[in-house]
Amino acid sequence: MKNNVIFEKVKRAKEASTLLGKIAPEAKNMALLKASESILKKKDELMASNKKDIANASLLLEKGEITKSIIDRLKLDDAKIEEISKMISSVANLKDPVGQVLYSIKMDEGLELFKVTVPFGVIFSIFESRPDALPQIASLCMKSGNSVILKGGSEALESNRTLFEILEEAFAAAGLPEGCIQLVEGREAITTLLKMDNMVDLVVPRGSNEFVRYIQENTRIPVLGHSSGICHVFVDSEADLTKALRICIDARVQYPAACNSMKVLLVDYRIADIFIPLLSKELIERGVRIKGCPTTVGILSRSGISVESAGDSDWNKEYLDLTLPIRVVNSLGDAIAHINNFGSRHTDAIITENMEKAKQFIQSVDSASVFHNASTRFSDGYRYGLGAEVGISTNKIHARGPVGLEGLVTTKYILIGNGHIVSDYVGKNAKPFLHKEIDRDWEARLK
Amino acid sequence: MKNNVIFEKVKRAKEASTLLGKIAPEAKNMALLKASESILKKKDELMASNKKDIANASLLLEKGEITKSIIDRLKLDDAKIEEISKMISSVANLKDPVGQVLYSIKMDEGLELFKVTVPFGVIFSIFESRPDALPQIASLCMKSGNSVILKGGSEALESNRTLFEILEEAFAAAGLPEGCIQLVEGREAITTLLKMDNMVDLVVPRGSNEFVRYIQENTRIPVLGHSSGICHVFVDSEADLTKALRICIDARVQYPAACNSMKVLLVDYRIADIFIPLLSKELIERGVRIKGCPTTVGILSRSGISVESAGDSDWNKEYLDLTLPIRVVNSLGDAIAHINNFGSRHTDAIITENMEKAKQFIQSVDSASVFHNASTRFSDGYRYGLGAEVGISTNKIHARGPVGLEGLVTTKYILIGNGHIVSDYVGKNAKPFLHKEIDRDWEARLK
Repeated sequence: MKNNVIFEKVKRAKEASTLLGKIAPEAKNMALLKASESILKKKDELMASNKKDIANASLLLEKGEITKSIIDRLKLDDAKIEEISKMISSVANLKDPVGQVLYSIKMDEGLELFKVTVPFGVIFSIFESRPDALPQIASLCMKSGNSVILKGGSEALESNRTLFEILEEAFAAAGLPEGCIQLVEGREAITTLLKMDNMVDLVVPRGSNEFVRYIQENTRIPVLGHSSGICHVFVDSEADLTKALRICIDARVQYPAACNSMKVLLVDYRIADIFIPLLSKELIERGVRIKGCPTTVGILSRSGISVESAGDSDWNKEYLDLTLPIRVVNSLGDAIAHINNFGSRHTDAIITENMEKAKQFIQSVDSASVFHNASTRFSDGYRYGLGAEVGISTNKIHARGPVGLEGLVTTKYILIGNGHIVSDYVGKNAKPFLHKEIDRDWEARLK
Repeated sequence: MKNNVIFEKVKRAKEASTLLGKIAPEAKNMALLKASESILKKKDELMASNKKDIANASLLLEKGEITKSIIDRLKLDDAKIEEISKMISSVANLKDPVGQVLYSIKMDEGLELFKVTVPFGVIFSIFESRPDALPQIASLCMKSGNSVILKGGSEALESNRTLFEILEEAFAAAGLPEGCIQLVEGREAITTLLKMDNMVDLVVPRGSNEFVRYIQENTRIPVLGHSSGICHVFVDSEADLTKALRICIDARVQYPAACNSMKVLLVDYRIADIFIPLLSKELIERGVRIKGCPTTVGILSRSGISVESAGDSDWNKEYLDLTLPIRVVNSLGDAIAHINNFGSRHTDAIITENMEKAKQFIQSVDSASVFHNASTRFSDGYRYGLGAEVGISTNKIHARGPVGLEGLVTTKYILIGNGHIVSDYVGKNAKPFLHKEIDRDWEARLK
C-alpha cells in the first residue's frame, strides 16, 4: 500500500475520531449489534474469502513456509462464525468506558473541575492471522470511542478484507462517523504508521515477543503490549505439597503456550528432596521435559530420574512448549531475587502456608500480578472480571497486568468557570480555593 | 562521575526500593519531618554552600555565560530556607499514595483479587538549578515509596551537595533503607542513566521543552513530563466580552513564562472588530507585543494601532515572554481545528455564553485540560486540589494534565487463593467465576 494511500486513511480516521469521541453509548452499541448480525447474514461471503486464504496457505505449507497450526487457526467454520458474532454483541453489553467522571471538585463558587475518561483518538492495531482478531479489536476500539487502523497477518488477507467490509458497512449503517475504521495491508504499512506520531495516539500490537519489542523500539507512539511471560512458581519450605503439586501441574501443563503459564519453577531446598521427585513424575507423565539446576539434577538422579541440565539462558527463556527449568533456592529472599532478576514482571506465585512469607513475597516481587496459592494461569482479563481483555501489559505506566477497555481510554480535565482569573487567587488578599467534592454531572453545568 | 560509580549508586537505589515499597506510611512521614527540621538546623552550612555557587555563577555572569535570572533563582536566604523546610513537612501531610486498593473482587470462594497501588521502584529525576528543586523532588519520591536518583543543574552543585547530605542523613536517621536517595553529577551521568532501563523505572525531567524532548527521544525508560504549553483562548461570537477581557489579560500577563499561560488567541470574526482593539489596548498598556493574522492587522490598523504580522511559525511557538499572536477564525469548528492542529494538548479555553458551543469545544478539543470561561492559568496541580504537583503531562498515557503523587505510583494485582487451579474453570463442568465485590483489606486475608 502506498504511503499517500495510508496517509489518507489515517487522516480520515483522525477526523472521524473527533466525532466518535462524543457519540452516545447507544449509538456505539447499536453499531456493534448490527455488525454482530451482519457477520451471520454474510456467512457465505466470509466462508468464500476464507477458502481463498486456506488455499493460499496450503501452498505455503507445501513449500514448508508456514506450519499446519497456522492453517488450523486460520480456518473458519459455522461454529467459529457464530462465536465471532456473539463476541461482538458481548462487547456491546460491557460497561461504557468513556465519560466516567473520576474526580469532581468545586475549586471556588462557580469554578468546577471534572476529570473525565475520553478515548485516545486513533488506535493502530497489528495482529496475528486469526479471523477472530480483526472483529475483536475493532469492537473494543469502537466501544471505547476510538478510530481504529487495522493491520492483520498476511495469511488472513481475504478473510480480513471481507470482515472489514462487513464491519465498515454495519458501522456506517448505524451512523458511526465515516472513516472510523480503516484497513491497511503490507508490511511497509507498519513502518509508515509507526512514524505518524502526530496522528496515531496508541499502538496495540499482538504477536510474538520479538515483534512487540520491535514495535516498542521503533516508534514514539505509546505502545500497549506485553513483551514476554517469564512466570514463576516458588514452592516454599512451608508449602502444602498437595496444593503445590496441583498448582504446578496446572500452571505448566493446562495451556503451555499461554503467556501466563509457569516458565520456571523455584523450590526451597528444605523440601526439594521430597517435592521435586513427586512433581517430576507427574510432569514427565504429562510429557514435560524437565531441565534442572545442579541440585535438581542430583535429587532426581537419586530417585532414578535422569534430566537435562539447565543452562544460564534457561532462566529467562519463555518456553511456550512443555519444557520446565527447575531451580532449588536457599530461601524466600533468594527466590524473590531470582524472580526480580530473571523474570519479565508478568505473573509470579508463591505456594506457602506461612502467611508472613506470602505477604513478603507479594510485597517484594516486582510483577504486574503476584499470587498466593493459586495458578499463574488465572492472570487474565476475563478471569479478573474486566470483561474483554485488550492484552496483558508488563509496562508499569498507564495499565499494568490484564488490561480491559479502561486501557483504551485516557482522561481529560474539564474546568467550568464564569470569568474566573488566577490573579484573584494569588498575592495579598488571595481568595482561597475550596477544593470541595461535588456531584459528577459536568454536562448539567452547561444547561 | 564514572560509569561504575553511577552503576553502584543505581544498584543500591534499586536494592533499597524493594524495602522502601513496603515501609509504613508513618516511617516515611517521620523521615520527611526529620528532614524538614534538619534543613533549618543546618542553615549555616547550607548558606555557605550556596555562597560558593553564587560566587561561581557570578564569574559565569561576568563572562556572559549565564543570565542574571539564573543567579536570582539560585540564591538562598532565610525566607527561602524556611519555605523549603515547610514544603517538606507539607508533603508528609499529604495522603499516602501507596497501598490504595482500587479494585477488589471474589473470583470464587477463597480466591480473591485486589488491585493495589505500589511505587514504581527507582525514579531518575533531572532538574534545573534551583535549590528548592532537589528537596521537593526527593520528598515526593520518598512519600510515594520510590528510591530516587537526583541530577541537578551544575550551577547549584554545592547547594545540592549539602541539601543531599542533609536529606540522606535525615532519611537514614529515620530508618529509611540505606541507598534510597542518590546524587549524581555531570552531564555524562544522564547519558549513562538513560540506558539503564532494566534498573530505572521512571524518568522525571524538568527544564526546557527541548531538554524534555531530548530525554524522551533517547531512552526506553518511561518519561513523565510535558514538552510544551501552546495554550489557546478562543473568544466565541457569543462571549461576554467583559469576561473575555479579564480572562485574556490574566492568561497572557499574570505569569507570562508559565507553561499554562495563553500563547495564542483565537477570535471569532463576528466580534473581532470590537474585541480585538479593546483587548489590544489593554495588553499593549501592559507591555504585550501583539502579532496579528492579516485580518487582525487590518482591524487594529483601522483603530490606529500598528502591530507586527504573525508568520506561520507563530502558531506553534511557545512565547514565554509578553508576546501574543492573534488569529481571527470563521467559526467554532475552525477554532477547534486550529487548536488540535497547532496546539500542544496542554490547556485550552473557550469564552462563550452559549452552552452548546462550550460543550462542543470541551468534547472536541483534544487537550489534557479544556476550560470554559476561565483562565488557562488555573491548570496546576495545587489549584486542582492534588496537593503537590509532580509536573503537567501532555502525554495521553499514564497521567495526563497536572500530575500529583498518583503519577509516581503504578499498580499491582494481588491474587490470594487456597490451591486454586485454572483447569477447574474450563471445559465441561467448568466452575463459574463469581466476580463479586469484596472489602479491600488484602492483608487481613494473610492472617
